[in-house]
This record gives sequence, C-alpha cells and structure tokens, in this order.
Amino acid sequence: MLPGLSDEQVRALRRVGRAWGRVSSPPEVWHRALPVEPDLGAFPVRAEAGSAWFGRLVPLSPLRARSLSGRRAVEPAAAAGAVPASAGTAGAGAGAGETVRRLLLGAPLASSAFVTERMRKLVALPVLSADALSSVAYGPEAMLTVLVLAGAAGLAYSFPVAAVIVFLMLAVGVSYRQTIRAYPHGGGSYIVAGDNLGPAAGLVAAAGLMTDYVLTVAVSIASGIAAITSALPGLVPWTVPLGVLVVVVLLAGNLRGIRQAGALFAAPTYAFVIAMFALIGAGLVDAAETGFRPVAPPALPVTEAVGLLLITRAFSSGATAMTGIEAISNAVPAFRPVEWRNARTTLSWMVGLLIAMFAGIVVLIHLTGVVPHSRETVLSQLAHLSFGGGWMYVYIQAATAAVLLLAANTAYNDFPRVLSLLARDDYAPKAFLRLGDRLAYSRSIVLLSLAAALVYIAFEGRTDALIPLYAVGVFLAFTLSQGGMVVHWWRRRDPHWRKSLVFNAVGAVLSGLVLLTAGVGKFTSGAWVALIAVLLFLLVTTRIRSHYTAARAYLRLRPHAVELPARTGAGPLAPATPAGGPRAGREAKKAKRAERAERAEKAERTGEPEEAEEIPGEIHHLSVVAVATLDLAGMRTLAYAASLGQPALAVHISTTEDEERRFRAYWSLWGDHLPLQTVLSPYRAVVAPLVHYIETLHRLNPELTLTVILPEIVTRHRRHQFLHSRTAARLRRALRHLPKIVITTVPFHLP
Amino acid sequence: MLPGLSDEQVRALRRVGRAWGRVSSPPEVWHRALPVEPDLGAFPVRAEAGSAWFGRLVPLSPLRARSLSGRRAVEPAAAAGAVPASAGTAGAGAGAGETVRRLLLGAPLASSAFVTERMRKLVALPVLSADALSSVAYGPEAMLTVLVLAGAAGLAYSFPVAAVIVFLMLAVGVSYRQTIRAYPHGGGSYIVAGDNLGPAAGLVAAAGLMTDYVLTVAVSIASGIAAITSALPGLVPWTVPLGVLVVVVLLAGNLRGIRQAGALFAAPTYAFVIAMFALIGAGLVDAAETGFRPVAPPALPVTEAVGLLLITRAFSSGATAMTGIEAISNAVPAFRPVEWRNARTTLSWMVGLLIAMFAGIVVLIHLTGVVPHSRETVLSQLAHLSFGGGWMYVYIQAATAAVLLLAANTAYNDFPRVLSLLARDDYAPKAFLRLGDRLAYSRSIVLLSLAAALVYIAFEGRTDALIPLYAVGVFLAFTLSQGGMVVHWWRRRDPHWRKSLVFNAVGAVLSGLVLLTAGVGKFTSGAWVALIAVLLFLLVTTRIRSHYTAARAYLRLRPHAVELPARTGAGPLAPATPAGGPRAGREAKKAKRAERAERAEKAERTGEPEEAEEIPGEIHHLSVVAVATLDLAGMRTLAYAASLGQPALAVHISTTEDEERRFRAYWSLWGDHLPLQTVLSPYRAVVAPLVHYIETLHRLNPELTLTVILPEIVTRHRRHQFLHSRTAARLRRALRHLPKIVITTVPFHLP
Repeated sequence: MLPGLSDEQVRALRRVGRAWGRVSSPPEVWHRALPVEPDLGAFPVRAEAGSAWFGRLVPLSPLRARSLSGRRAVEPAAAAGAVPASAGTAGAGAGAGETVRRLLLGAPLASSAFVTERMRKLVALPVLSADALSSVAYGPEAMLTVLVLAGAAGLAYSFPVAAVIVFLMLAVGVSYRQTIRAYPHGGGSYIVAGDNLGPAAGLVAAAGLMTDYVLTVAVSIASGIAAITSALPGLVPWTVPLGVLVVVVLLAGNLRGIRQAGALFAAPTYAFVIAMFALIGAGLVDAAETGFRPVAPPALPVTEAVGLLLITRAFSSGATAMTGIEAISNAVPAFRPVEWRNARTTLSWMVGLLIAMFAGIVVLIHLTGVVPHSRETVLSQLAHLSFGGGWMYVYIQAATAAVLLLAANTAYNDFPRVLSLLARDDYAPKAFLRLGDRLAYSRSIVLLSLAAALVYIAFEGRTDALIPLYAVGVFLAFTLSQGGMVVHWWRRRDPHWRKSLVFNAVGAVLSGLVLLTAGVGKFTSGAWVALIAVLLFLLVTTRIRSHYTAARAYLRLRPHAVELPARTGAGPLAPATPAGGPRAGREAKKAKRAERAERAEKAERTGEPEEAEEIPGEIHHLSVVAVATLDLAGMRTLAYAASLGQPALAVHISTTEDEERRFRAYWSLWGDHLPLQTVLSPYRAVVAPLVHYIETLHRLNPELTLTVILPEIVTRHRRHQFLHSRTAARLRRALRHLPKIVITTVPFHLP
Repeated sequence: MLPGLSDEQVRALRRVGRAWGRVSSPPEVWHRALPVEPDLGAFPVRAEAGSAWFGRLVPLSPLRARSLSGRRAVEPAAAAGAVPASAGTAGAGAGAGETVRRLLLGAPLASSAFVTERMRKLVALPVLSADALSSVAYGPEAMLTVLVLAGAAGLAYSFPVAAVIVFLMLAVGVSYRQTIRAYPHGGGSYIVAGDNLGPAAGLVAAAGLMTDYVLTVAVSIASGIAAITSALPGLVPWTVPLGVLVVVVLLAGNLRGIRQAGALFAAPTYAFVIAMFALIGAGLVDAAETGFRPVAPPALPVTEAVGLLLITRAFSSGATAMTGIEAISNAVPAFRPVEWRNARTTLSWMVGLLIAMFAGIVVLIHLTGVVPHSRETVLSQLAHLSFGGGWMYVYIQAATAAVLLLAANTAYNDFPRVLSLLARDDYAPKAFLRLGDRLAYSRSIVLLSLAAALVYIAFEGRTDALIPLYAVGVFLAFTLSQGGMVVHWWRRRDPHWRKSLVFNAVGAVLSGLVLLTAGVGKFTSGAWVALIAVLLFLLVTTRIRSHYTAARAYLRLRPHAVELPARTGAGPLAPATPAGGPRAGREAKKAKRAERAERAEKAERTGEPEEAEEIPGEIHHLSVVAVATLDLAGMRTLAYAASLGQPALAVHISTTEDEERRFRAYWSLWGDHLPLQTVLSPYRAVVAPLVHYIETLHRLNPELTLTVILPEIVTRHRRHQFLHSRTAARLRRALRHLPKIVITTVPFHLP
C-alpha cells in the first residue's frame, strides 16, 4: 500500500500545481488534443497478477564508467564547475566485479595500442610453426597406436606409411608455396576457397577450420599434459583438471590480449627443435653402437589383422603431424617485405624441419622397438632410453609441453580471425566483429575456450581418442583451399601458372584422399563427431545469414506515397491543437482516427511494415505516463512528458478503490494538468494491468506511436537496486512484441 | 563495416529527404534552436574500445503475452481490423520456456481465484496442527540422543525432563489461548511483539520466525526421510538427494499455489494420530504382559557425565516437540464464526493430543529400552517391536513421513506471509509483496526453498545435527510473543486481564528459559548458526528499512523557488525558436546556457537534488539520436526524434574516416534536416565513444535533460535477438549513474 501524503506534502503539491497552471495549457486544451478516449470503452475487463520471479537471464555488458570519467582532465571544460562531484559518482558506480576484472585482465587499452608488428623470418618461423612442428609430438605416436593393433606385422608397415606422409608433407608444402605467391595479403582456406570455388565452398572450408581450431586446442593440451604426466606419473589422475586449468590460463591470457610475437613465443619452438634433434642424434649414436640393428618390439596382443582399413587409419592418424602447416600462408602480411618471398622461405624451412623431425622420430622408434603405452608418451620413452631420467630428459619433456601449449595458443589467434570474417560475411553474429576493451575478440576467445574445454572433458583428455576427430576438419580445409588454388591458376593464368596448378592439384588430390580415408576409416571411432560438428556449423551459419539477409531487406528504405496529415502546422515544432469547440474537436478527432486506422489497415494488407514512418509528420504521438505516486520522481516524469509537447495521458494502477479515490483527489488537488486514467488492480499487480491497458490502447489506435514514460529510481550502489521496482524492465519485456510502443524511463538518482 | 547504399536506396533517400523538406523547418532553424555546440570544442579526445562479454546476469521477468492477447475476444474493438495479425505475433512471442512453465505450474490465475476458505474445527485441527503434532516424530528422540551420551544414568532422567516439557506445553498452550482471545484477526509473533514491545522486538521475533520456518522445512524433511530410510535402509545413501527432491516438489507445488485445506491435507495428520495411538496402545498391551517391567537398555558407552549442561541440552532438544504450537493463533480468521472461540477449542484439542502422544512415546521408550540409533528412528524401532515388519509397520512409517512432509509444507504458507508483512513495513524488498501469476508469493517461496535446501545439504539431512539450531528461533519468537501479551494485558485491562496476564507471563518466562538453555547449552553444537542467522537477518532488515526511509525522504516533493525561463512561449506546446539572426541567436543561447549552468551549480551547492524539475518549463530538452545507418529503422528513429518537437542532434559513430565522409555525404544528400555530429572510433567500438560523447555533453550542459534516442531491432523469435546489436541495453547500463539522461529506444520489429 502506498502511504498517504503528509500535510506538508499536500501543501507542496498545491503550490507545484499552481506553478504548473502558469506554464501549461488548461486541461480542456489537453483533453481536446488527446487522440483517444482515456477509458477505452469498457476497460478494464480483467486484471491479472504479473509473474515475476522465473525470468530468463540476460547478460548485460558493463562499461568502464571509471576510466571514462577518469579521463575528464583532458576534456575542454573540466574546470567548468559541476564536473568533480559527478565524476566521483561515476567512479563509485563501477562495482567490485569491475575491480576483479581489471586485476585479471589489466587496464583497458586504447585503440592506438593495436599495432601490427612485422616479423623477421627467424622470429616468424618459431611463432608461426609452433602448431605444425609440435604435431611431431603426437603424429608418429598416433600412427603407431593404430598399427600396433596388428602386432609386429602392423608395425612393419610404419616405414611405408611414414614415407607416404612425408611425401604428403612435401606436396602440401609446395602447394602452399603457390598460395603464398597468389595471396600475398593472407590466404586462409576460407578466403581462398570462397574466392575461387564460391561462397558455399568457403563456408565448408570455414567449418573445417573452426573444428580444426577447437581440436588443435584440445589435442595440443592433451598431448602437452601427456608429456608432463609421462615425467610425473603421479599427476595422471589429474589429467582432466590440469587440462581445464590450461584452458582457463589460455582464456585469461588471451582476454588480456597476448600477442604472439617476441622472444617469449619464439623460445619454446626453438627449444623443442633442439630437443628433438638432440633426441634423434643421441638415439642414432646409440643405434650406431649396435650397428643399427633394430630392437625387436615386445610381444604384442594382436587384435586386428593387417588390412587396407588398418593401414588407412594409421595413415590418417599419422597425417595429423601435418596440422598447422597452413599457418604461414595465412600470415603473409606479418612478414617484413618482400612479404611473400620471406613467407615462402620460412615455409620451406618449416616443412624441412617438420619432415626431418618426423622421419627421425619414426626411424628412432623403429630402431628402439618402442611401442605406444597408455601411461607414457613415445617421446618420453625415447628420451628415457637415450638419457635416462636426468636433466636432458626433463628438458625434452618440458620443451615438448611448452611447444604444445604454444600451439594451443595459436588457435586463439586464428579462431577469432576466421569468426570475424564469417561475421563480416553475415555467417556469424555481428557481435564477433567487436573487440573487447583489451583489444581482443573477447567473445570468440570465450567461445573457443568453452568448446575446447567441452571436447577435452568429453574425451577425458586422451590424445588417442581425440586424434580421429582431428583429421577431418584439417584436411577438409586443406582440400578446399588447394582445390581453390587450382581454379585460381586456371582462371588467372599468371606466369608459371601451369607449374603452380600442378603442384596445387597434387596437394588437393592428396589432401582429398586423406580426408576420405579419415572420414571413412575412422567414422565409427570418432570422425562422426567431427562430421556432425561440420554439418551443424553449416546449418547454423546459413540460417544466420538468411536471417541477416531478410532483416536487411526488410530494413531497406521504401518510401511509400507520403500522405501528410491534412491539419495545418503539423511540423515537428508545432503539434496540433484542434480549433473549434469541444464537440467539433471531438468529431474531428474521431474522423482523423478513422482515417488513420484505415491507412494502417491498408498498409498491413499490402504487406508494408507497420513501423514504416519515415517523416516526422507521419508519426502521431501519444505519451502514456505511468505514475505510481506523486513524489519527486513521479512529478518530474509528468513534467518531462508534458514538456515534450505531445498529447499525454497519465495512467495510475490502483490496488484498492480507496486508493484510487485518494489518488484522484490528489490529482485534482494538484490541478488536473494532465488527463488521468486509473486502473483498478487488486493484489497489487502493477505490470500486468499496465501492459494490458497499453496493449489495448495500441490495438484500438494502431496508427499511434505510444511513448510509455515512467520514472525509474536508480540507486547509487547496484546492490540496493533490488529494493526498488523493476517495472521498466518488465514493461519493456512484456511489450516487446508490439509495434510502435516506445518505452522511456526517466531516471531519478538516489544520493 | 556498414555496406554502402545501392542506387535504388540513394534515390529513395533523396525522395524521403524532399518529403522531409516539406514538413520540417530548414536546417538553419534547427541549428539555431540547438542549445549546445555539436562538436563540444575539441571532442573527441580519445575513443576506447568497449568491453562486451563479461557482463553480469540480471533476471528479467517474463509476462504472459499469450494470455493477454488471448483475451482480445472480450475487448470492445476486437473486430476493428488490425487485431488478428498482431495477436498472432503476440502468441508466437511467448517462448518454449513459457510452455514448460505452464506445464509445471498450470495456467495463470485471475485475481478473483483468490478465495479465503473458512475451516471447520475438524478440518482446521489436522491442517493447522500438522507442524506441532509431527514434532512428536523427532522431539522425544532428540531428547534421548542427548541423554544417552551419559549411558543408563542419563536415560534415567528422561522422565523428569519429559515431565517438564509436558508442563511447558501446557503452559504455552494456555498462554496462546490468551493470544487468540486478544488477537482474533490473527496474532503472529511479529505482530504481537511489534504491537506491544515496539518495532525492534517485533523484528527480533520475525528473525526468530524466519529461521524457524527455514528449519521447520529442513528438520521435517530430514525426519520424514529418516522415517522412510528406516523402513528401506537401502535408501540411506540417497538421504540428501531425496531431501532436495522433496524441496523441489514443495517448491513446484507451492508455486502452483497449493492451498492448505481439504481432505488431502487433513488425511496425513489423522493417519499419524491414529498410527501413534495404535503404536502406544500396542506397546502398552505388550508391556502389560510383562507387568510393565521396563526392558533394560543395551549397554551403552558413556561419553559424558550426567550434569546440568547435559540435562538442559536434553531439555531444549526435547522442547522442539513443541514447535508449531503457535500455528493456530496465527490463523484465527480462517475458522468459522465465532472464530476465536473455535480456534481456542481447536488449540486445546491440539495441545491435548500433543501431550498424550509425547508422553505416550516417552513412556513406551522407557518400557521397551529402545535407544536412538543412527540408521533407524526410535519410532521405527518401536513399531518394529510391536508389529514386526508387517503392514502396520509400513502404515506407521508412511503416516509419519506424510505428516512430516505436510508439516514442511505449512512453513510455505507462513514464511511468505511474514515476509510480506516485513516488506509492508519496509524491512524487506517491496518485491515480496507481489503475488505471482498463480497467486502465490513466488519470490518468497523460492527464497524459502533455497534456504531450506542449503541448510539441509549443509547438515547432510541429519535430524540430530539440525535440532540444536531449531530451538533458538522457535523460542525466541515464543518468548517475545508471550512477553508482548503480558504488556498487552497490562495496558488494556480487559475483563479477566489478571488471569490472562499470569498465564502469558508463565509462558513467556518458561519460553525464555528454554531460549536461554538452548542458546547457551547448545551454542557450540549448532545454536551459533541460528544466532548468526538471526543477527544477520536483523542487520539486513534494518539496513533495508533505512534505505527505504532515506529514499522516501529524498523523493518527497520539495518545491523550490520556480524561475521560469525568460523566453516567451516556453510552454510545453511551443518550444523555443529564438528570434533574430544566427549571430544574435548564438549569443542569446550562450547567455542562457551560462545562466542555467549557474543555477545548476547553485542547486548542487545547496544540496538540492540535481533532478528536481517539477514543472515542464524547467526541463530543457535535447534529443540525441544515435544513428548507425540510414535504413528504415534509423530513419524512423530520426522521424520520431524530430516529431517530438524538441531540439535534436544526431550522432553517428564512424569506424573509419572513409565511412565518416560517406555517411556525411548521405546525410547532406538526404537534406541535412537535423544537425549531425560524427565521432570517429577505429576498431568498431560503438558504445564506449557514444557513452563518452553523451557523458561529456552532460558535463558541459548539466542543466539539459538529454534524451538519447536510438533504434532497436526486435526479432520475432527471442533466439534471433543475439544476432542484433544490444547497444540500447549497454548504453542504459553505462549511463545509469549519470543524472538527467533519458534513454529511449524506438523498436523496429522484424517479421
């Protein structure tokens, strides 16, 4: 129940009313200007109680009020008086959440902090090839894991399969050299496939890329954690929590806006390369002592016969050692000039290193007779054999883990970039175009982290379980990208186009074959998950695009035959005040309303949008002021509405008839400056009857634009806000589906 | 990047611009009417990228759009044309969440469904005494659990302690008979203590009541589950999930709006009373066969000596058998006339039954030598002894569980009632006054469920761990209520006041003693939790009240010396258009601004609220239209702003200089009907530069009321909304702390 006014308040109210009388028109004028009957015939029919609690949760994004007001010193009129006090308020407005955020993420960055660094080849190599080179940590092992199912007979095939993979690396490497030349501004699979094979192919390539990035994070972390748990077996039960922790660290680091450049990011790759060559070298020296006689692998249970399917599965698993090979072709503009030439050289180095390391590891495995083991990675076993448990072993494991975590981090640079390209082309929500206050694509980073964590947890962080999913996405993108290049050369016929075309065609065909073997051979063991992910991605992106297309078409300006209202002075500066006596005014109003309703109906029949007014004269206003009490906030809201100079109507929801009578009495005491409609609602529901009233008002006068104006108490501390009514938010939600209803809240700030 | 306009759109834009030219004033007039310099001197200083993702979660409450539009048939103008189409839209607007909600909770109820049923005594007895009578299921056991710590020596004290408790029941029962006579409209502890001992005492009583209700739910469920697990020991590991399930069922049931009346609610209590008497009867018959010779209890480990502390702890534990004894005095108006007389009779019956059952069980325990057991309740042991495992045993356990769950449900009726009284008196958020759409106090019900579930889970559903918490709240409320009655009789001196005063005084003193023994004796074993809960409650409620008091004072109307602007025609219907040439206009504007700023500054110095305008003439408008694209939605927003007839300024955030130039070109192509300010913001941040611009505009012109107007795309399905910008919500949040800024969104609905 609302409390009554004290004597002092009543006096104040009367005085205010007298002041209003001096500035506002007498009530007759207001009433005549009103384009509706306030009581709407027989309204209210029924009032219902509004539901309140089980709302949905909608995230609201904070904005750094503090940093904005902190900058007032540079504003031209900082010394002009009212600034300091309000700046203090602004500072207090930012809550504890903001403080935590700043501690974690650092201060917001100005846009000018966004600089593109050009990289030397010796820096670009480690930075861009971390993903590809780190694949050596799991590629050979993944191949062996399949072959070992056929026992010693299977292991015998490791050399031929590895040889095919090396050839594939070479072919794809040469193929990407062509891409670099053709796309010096960066040729990601999405762009290359989209440019040359059409948007659909581009989208499919993007689907492959997106699943690839998610799996890169998951597989790299799984493999990195495996490197750690191989050295410290006590950590094995913590595999999943450790992996999730790494995702969280990557998330936080990337939200802070880590840039992949500088020594910090170059070190792990070089350390890993050195570690691998040390391992291979030491292994070969050991083997030389025994005359390169391979140690026989231990007796193995044979669970599967050697067959085409087994071989293709081993092949597609081993081919995951190639993932990341395309990274350099995406990042050509990051090189120093001449960009494309430097990029090509770096790519050649990378492919050389990759092949050397891959081949070396496979040979070493063959010589030492090491087989995959669920508790220790193959690399760790090799290191143990060569170096025992000493510091060299620790170094190898640490370098492996570091390069794998760095590889996971590369996906954090690429995923948001592709997603922003998709958003640019309407395939993803436009929000993914937006940079966070640390200049990172915050939303994409969060999305990638969530997806990767989900996959990682679902497969319990087991590398061997994740590998079958991996190849599909990677080779889908490879195939389409290189297929696109074939079309590119055929169309463009630049110098040397024949040679390039052949190289790309070979790459495309081989990649396509891997894709087929991976998709078919591993369908049941996990590839179906990747295929479903790709299909789901295609479904969602195309639906998003069709929504945007439809929305854009609907939003296009479509000038209708403008019929300006016949009344004179209908411009924005002079709203109508009908001439003549009250009767004539009312009849004119009725005729006008009928005419407008007819026009609205016609517009609807012809499929014209309801909200197609483009000219001020077409908008017929009615302000509806929802007033609960005649306090300062309520009075100010009424003043606001009246000062807009449009026809206004006040609505009051009464909980009892007594309260209604009392409110009407206060109203006439004040001077009846605005027409008042009271709606009776027992049981104190406020929003539902108000919504119903406004809804009916709209239905009866579809030609009017209703501006619902209501006060909103704003507390200084957000934690006090729950003490005040959330009528505005609830009204906004309830009236959301109705056209031509504008909701305006007039804030009133508590000290 | 925003796409460019096609030729067709450019033509359309020009045509629209020409139409605007016919209705709107030429730009010079607009510019002269503008009370600020659009470029604000040297603005923009710096633009920063806005943060977007890590928002807070704010619940929005849905409103049944469907049911509202479903009612259009009864609206007077349902046949008037535009209704069916928009009603269809409204229906589709309600999402899947709403459907689930309706399935769970049923259709919304009209207020008229809220009827108060009068109860006969034979119905009122079971309904209102379920809480009290069910206490017999845990009270005696709680007492024994303490005594048994001293072994057989301790158990010897069970008769004297029980005798004191019986006397206490009698005294408190007689005491509440007085309350019923004095408060025929229902005398809850909060009201009685508040009326007679002052608001502080009432609040403390309420604190006791609130903890009491939460614990009634937790203890009753724990005890009810214990009755079930005693019969089905396999369910013991499921104690906590089962209890949480019961809370969820009670939550859903009460959100649906279960009323505690009718046979459904009477049955369990009667079944339980019959069960108890059957148990006691059978036990006594068995005992008669052995000549009432008590069976010696099993040898028990003695962990504590018999002492005063042990006895008092046993006493306060056993006194929990009295909880719920006050229920009838709260519900006097629910009886048939003569209400107070019927309520008194029912109370007497209830106390009689309670004493008989309590005493009977204690005697039976003594005779059978049963001792508390962690896996089986005492009642279950007694039933096993008398009836073996047959259907009588099952019946007794089922009836016990049923009455306990019913007792838990009574708290769901009382808790919201007390909370709504607190909210009425400013001690709790006003939102707790509001009824949900099933006429239940949804928020209170959810709050109670959460608190009870939390307590239940924290104590792992163990009755013996919860009991020490219980007594404090209950006897706090009892003591204050009866103490209040003493003052009541002393002041009023009705007939028989002396007798009533003595009865109440005895009740108050005894309750106070129990409170003391419970608070001191059990402090370490759990009572401290209850005490902290009470103190926290007092802290929060008093702070809420002081916030409301301060807010109300601040919101009071306080007419200042009204200085109307000197310009002529400053009424709401005719906004200013300064006379004279552009130079004179600018100088007049400057002078006016200085004057207003001075006034604003003065108001601030004198502590006057910044937002104290009460008269339309005091409000100086500036509309700021945030326009991103000149599409239909943008154009309509501009039209809306212009048609308000107040000075308006359009602001456009450009992401590049090219885009800025292009937008300006479009603007002049359209005809420059409104002044335009563009703000350059690289990296696509929109909200932060806009906020900064508006903030600076406000700081420089604190006397202006800024109405920020922007379009908002509303999708038909809520799931598509995430595809469109949430600028409005983010602006609202970012500008929330600044006074005099009104945010208006002009909705544009996609089909």
